[in-house]
Amino acid sequence: MGSPEPLDSQISFVLEADRLKTVTRQSVIIGESRRENSAEHSWHLALMAVVLAGHAPPGTDLGKVGAMVVLHDLVEIDAGDLFLYSGAAAQARQEEAERAAADRLFAILPPAQAAELRGLWDEFEERRTPEARFARALDRLQPMLLNMQTGGGTWTAHGVTLDQVLAKVHLIEEGSASLGAYAKTMIATAVQRGFLKPAAG
Amino acid sequence: MGSPEPLDSQISFVLEADRLKTVTRQSVIIGESRRENSAEHSWHLALMAVVLAGHAPPGTDLGKVGAMVVLHDLVEIDAGDLFLYSGAAAQARQEEAERAAADRLFAILPPAQAAELRGLWDEFEERRTPEARFARALDRLQPMLLNMQTGGGTWTAHGVTLDQVLAKVHLIEEGSASLGAYAKTMIATAVQRGFLKPAAG
Repeated sequence: MGSPEPLDSQISFVLEADRLKTVTRQSVIIGESRRENSAEHSWHLALMAVVLAGHAPPGTDLGKVGAMVVLHDLVEIDAGDLFLYSGAAAQARQEEAERAAADRLFAILPPAQAAELRGLWDEFEERRTPEARFARALDRLQPMLLNMQTGGGTWTAHGVTLDQVLAKVHLIEEGSASLGAYAKTMIATAVQRGFLKPAAG
Repeated sequence: MGSPEPLDSQISFVLEADRLKTVTRQSVIIGESRRENSAEHSWHLALMAVVLAGHAPPGTDLGKVGAMVVLHDLVEIDAGDLFLYSGAAAQARQEEAERAAADRLFAILPPAQAAELRGLWDEFEERRTPEARFARALDRLQPMLLNMQTGGGTWTAHGVTLDQVLAKVHLIEEGSASLGAYAKTMIATAVQRGFLKPAAG
């Protein structure tokens, strides 16, 4: 038995990816009382990569940023979505589950492409390149934008504190100075509106 | 009163775009009895643009393809989604509604960026460049892939005939020879499985 044709493997991957539409996140979409799914979220990041491209550091490869944000959550098909402010033990288990999911999912593709796209996923996770840092900044900023439009959203629902949010804001600042400054202003407004508790109780 | 800061306008656009998550398409997602929304669909096309990049004609700007597929359905926020095999009068009304929606939506952005992204949307619609033709090929192929995995999907639900599908397959062939050939084989299988009626009754 020979290997499947490359296109057959690629279509299998595209079909498997459809399942990301059934992975539910904590964030609520604007104006509707339902949670966002990870496919919609990934699209919103890809749109932000286009619209906010001018806020990436000069020389950032925006095509690569787009590919990263489109791929970054596929591992949730197996691992599910974990809320950002979960404990360290849960985070460690999640990271292991996501690596196992990446092993399984990217292996559906023809070998050379599997290595290439797995490399993009690893790059996003490791956050060492300007592209990965900008993509991660968008991934952090988007749920904050939704929270501001949904009466505090996941912040209010989970009693998140200012300290917790400030401890993560460097993920935005390191990807984009202007988006980082915007996020800090938004966080101050969130405290004023009572969406974020000033400190841990 | 001065103009808003560019970033404020860009964030307003990103927030307005969130509404695409509430626009329902005819297609059903795999393995679940609910319809796909236009944001998920747009993400799936962006993923296909990455995975199937090698099937675009040489020299195709794939970053541009990615931006086009991410933007192409935003007009449905105002115009809604129209089923592909609707009549000519409905198609004409839809085109007018989509142009009006594009006028409104892109104008939320800072003027230079509004013109740039509206240009990408027009390019996708006009289907004159290799990028637009490849993006449109993906947009035609994706619902066919879902139909094959959901017992005929919209084909069965709407009694679509082989002639109707073959009349649109050139949209795939003109964007990518290999994806066009794949689509034709898939259509033959769909007829064998009874998903498509051989001819109009």
